[in-house]
Amino acid sequence: MIDADALRAHDASLFAARRARLLATFAGEALIPAGVPFPKNYPANPFPFRASSHFLYLVGLPLPGAQLVLRGDDTTLYVEAPAADDELWHGPTPSLDDLARVTGLRVAPLDAFAPLSPDAAVLLPQGERARVTAAGLLRREITPPTDEDLALQDAMIALRLVHDAGAIAELRRAAEATVAAHRAGMAATRVGVTEFAIAAAMEGELMRRGMSTSYGSIVSVRGEILHNHSHAGTAKEGDLLLADVGAETGLGFAGDVTRTWPVSGRFDGPQRALYEVVLAAQKDTIARCTAGTRYRDVHLAACRAIAEGLVGLGILRGDVDELVADGVHATFFPHGIGHLLGLDVHDMEDLGDRAGYAAGRERSTQFGLGYLRLDRDLQPGMAVTIEPGFYAVPAILRDPERRRVAKDRIDFATLEAFASVRGIRIEDDVLVTDGAPEVLTAALPKDAAAIEACVGA
Amino acid sequence: MIDADALRAHDASLFAARRARLLATFAGEALIPAGVPFPKNYPANPFPFRASSHFLYLVGLPLPGAQLVLRGDDTTLYVEAPAADDELWHGPTPSLDDLARVTGLRVAPLDAFAPLSPDAAVLLPQGERARVTAAGLLRREITPPTDEDLALQDAMIALRLVHDAGAIAELRRAAEATVAAHRAGMAATRVGVTEFAIAAAMEGELMRRGMSTSYGSIVSVRGEILHNHSHAGTAKEGDLLLADVGAETGLGFAGDVTRTWPVSGRFDGPQRALYEVVLAAQKDTIARCTAGTRYRDVHLAACRAIAEGLVGLGILRGDVDELVADGVHATFFPHGIGHLLGLDVHDMEDLGDRAGYAAGRERSTQFGLGYLRLDRDLQPGMAVTIEPGFYAVPAILRDPERRRVAKDRIDFATLEAFASVRGIRIEDDVLVTDGAPEVLTAALPKDAAAIEACVGA
Repeated sequence: MIDADALRAHDASLFAARRARLLATFAGEALIPAGVPFPKNYPANPFPFRASSHFLYLVGLPLPGAQLVLRGDDTTLYVEAPAADDELWHGPTPSLDDLARVTGLRVAPLDAFAPLSPDAAVLLPQGERARVTAAGLLRREITPPTDEDLALQDAMIALRLVHDAGAIAELRRAAEATVAAHRAGMAATRVGVTEFAIAAAMEGELMRRGMSTSYGSIVSVRGEILHNHSHAGTAKEGDLLLADVGAETGLGFAGDVTRTWPVSGRFDGPQRALYEVVLAAQKDTIARCTAGTRYRDVHLAACRAIAEGLVGLGILRGDVDELVADGVHATFFPHGIGHLLGLDVHDMEDLGDRAGYAAGRERSTQFGLGYLRLDRDLQPGMAVTIEPGFYAVPAILRDPERRRVAKDRIDFATLEAFASVRGIRIEDDVLVTDGAPEVLTAALPKDAAAIEACVGA
Repeated sequence: MIDADALRAHDASLFAARRARLLATFAGEALIPAGVPFPKNYPANPFPFRASSHFLYLVGLPLPGAQLVLRGDDTTLYVEAPAADDELWHGPTPSLDDLARVTGLRVAPLDAFAPLSPDAAVLLPQGERARVTAAGLLRREITPPTDEDLALQDAMIALRLVHDAGAIAELRRAAEATVAAHRAGMAATRVGVTEFAIAAAMEGELMRRGMSTSYGSIVSVRGEILHNHSHAGTAKEGDLLLADVGAETGLGFAGDVTRTWPVSGRFDGPQRALYEVVLAAQKDTIARCTAGTRYRDVHLAACRAIAEGLVGLGILRGDVDELVADGVHATFFPHGIGHLLGLDVHDMEDLGDRAGYAAGRERSTQFGLGYLRLDRDLQPGMAVTIEPGFYAVPAILRDPERRRVAKDRIDFATLEAFASVRGIRIEDDVLVTDGAPEVLTAALPKDAAAIEACVGA
């Protein structure tokens, strides 16, 4: 159900302008479904409804089951008509007229859905049930996508790549809440506290703002497990805690921030040395996020900065450019430097590399570089994350292929001295501008001393 | 992914005993899928995985995509084999051998799935994708259910209706966390605090225990909206706050508790009077939850207690038995007195009234009684909620049909004097025993003075 507050706050002109921009580049007929809630253990006990990002971008209201149809000047929002006893169980619900007044759209009940033209395009929602419904409305197969579908995808990608003022305002809201969550996490950390408790402190900060998380939180003393959604560990003396937590605003926009802090409030020597390597790489890389720069080059610069730092500490040996060209750095920094950020934490990942990779560019097959999710030239209005890291991942360190590539360029004896580091990542949300990049999450400390001062405070 | 801690804590004998009990009453071949995660905005950003309750009941580990096949003595758990790079992204993952050792089951990879017999039965998971997979494994349509499917449902219902020691232990864990959440909610309440902040305090208490919610929390000063999942309101002087929040344990069992407390820490006169009516009804009704009692009679006793209380306050007029027989009480208490509680907050609601209603019993068509989810004779080991309430629902109060039924038996002038009450509900989790019912959530205060002492404290 849509909150009365959400309706009051709705800025119809923002979404009308987005629809007009889409129609300026896509001339056909388009179906954009909102999707439907997913059942948790039975249909009446669903997961919280999260509308399709494409629908949210163009309509701004999470209306379960709604279908937006764009046909030139003739745009209609089809919605489920409120059931007779809706008001009994759900309180006053907006009528179709209310929705029409608030959105400025023609609003019709779903059972009045008018047939689409045979070449109508669709931006598919998530979930099989919603996809089957879309196929029924289109009266055709939905996979593989038609040429019209791909043209609609491209028009939407062009639009969502460059954030408008409304999107930037939402990204700032997400960033503000995300920063607060990380401050709460640092404050809640002390020796003996569980990861669950730290995660609860962080997510609680989002909840009290009426927000949720834009992805499953990573809050762990085992920072080397890159997609570690377990919070079953306990923060012990000497551990680093890695927290990768981001807010999702009411309109669906994402924050995505990582900080790594010492549980005790003090980095030990090896931790501090590696933290400074990652931090220097992060600051250097953020500065490169200027209009016209190819994001892959930003990634490679980060790889060089990490490699250089590790050579400085004696963990790697050899020429920095060669280490990066051969992918030796990826033993310790296996993932990409970041990704698009917007309505999705990996923005438009539902459309695959069509969104993240410019036409004619393809993923590398090299270990490390192949995980880079974005290879476009940066433009003002794009938002990206910058998130270099250092990890001691047993599965990578013992991998014969990685060892073959590294030859003798990893000093395992020296690495032993850094055994108190499992994983460090430092991630901020960056808005590309006409000038210097703007760090949306700049309010969150990241210098080592500043981080230390926040722990348990 | 399965936590190492979850594997260590796994009590294989409990689940083996449950499977043996099922096979003692169901002789055929059975497929019990775990289900798969649902994508939030793209497949790599899913909702938290919640395995099918039937699968959790028999296996105890939330293994995405797993399929349990029961064939007499020949039971096999088919699981997705870990991918080559799983350890890189997800850390050490249990091997098939690990799972076999921990569960005592034969464990095989999904691609070794052996064909099922043509009359194999299935307990369907939630979600279209998982259902399509099940249909493929069965090589038949899955709707409508076959006679074998219904026989398997009945065997499972008989088992899950009466909780074993393992289930009761989990219900106690859920109850303990749920009680803590409500205490935290009361403590966080003061004039000017948002519903979001109170909900955050309550759910945070669950998260720090490594638990989640068993249903979407209701935390609202608009208690008359029965399924109100908005937390956008602010607690104001004079408001009652209604919180219906329950924990879900790691093994999937549910708590389900409602308390209603005054935001200011003091009930006003009319609030106190109506609170006492609901509380007296709740205590009286709980005492009736004894073995052999028909749950519908428990419901009707609650209706009488509410009606009697409202007659005492002058809100209703007339003979209590007639008021209940005509459903006049349902103007203020429209829902059922409670439901089964177990692995689902409405236990086995995925199977419909086949679970909640004894053979030969059907839902009433009367307003109020028709919403009763359970009409079985209580047995020792059953867990139910008891949750009477009083609500001033505008949609009901102005409904011509309700007014026709009530005739002159509602004193609207007197009702005006209780305008400071929108909704009151008091709900506990009750275990039926051989003797007096055991209130699993008894540790949470509910007497008016005790509640007042907890607010803002």
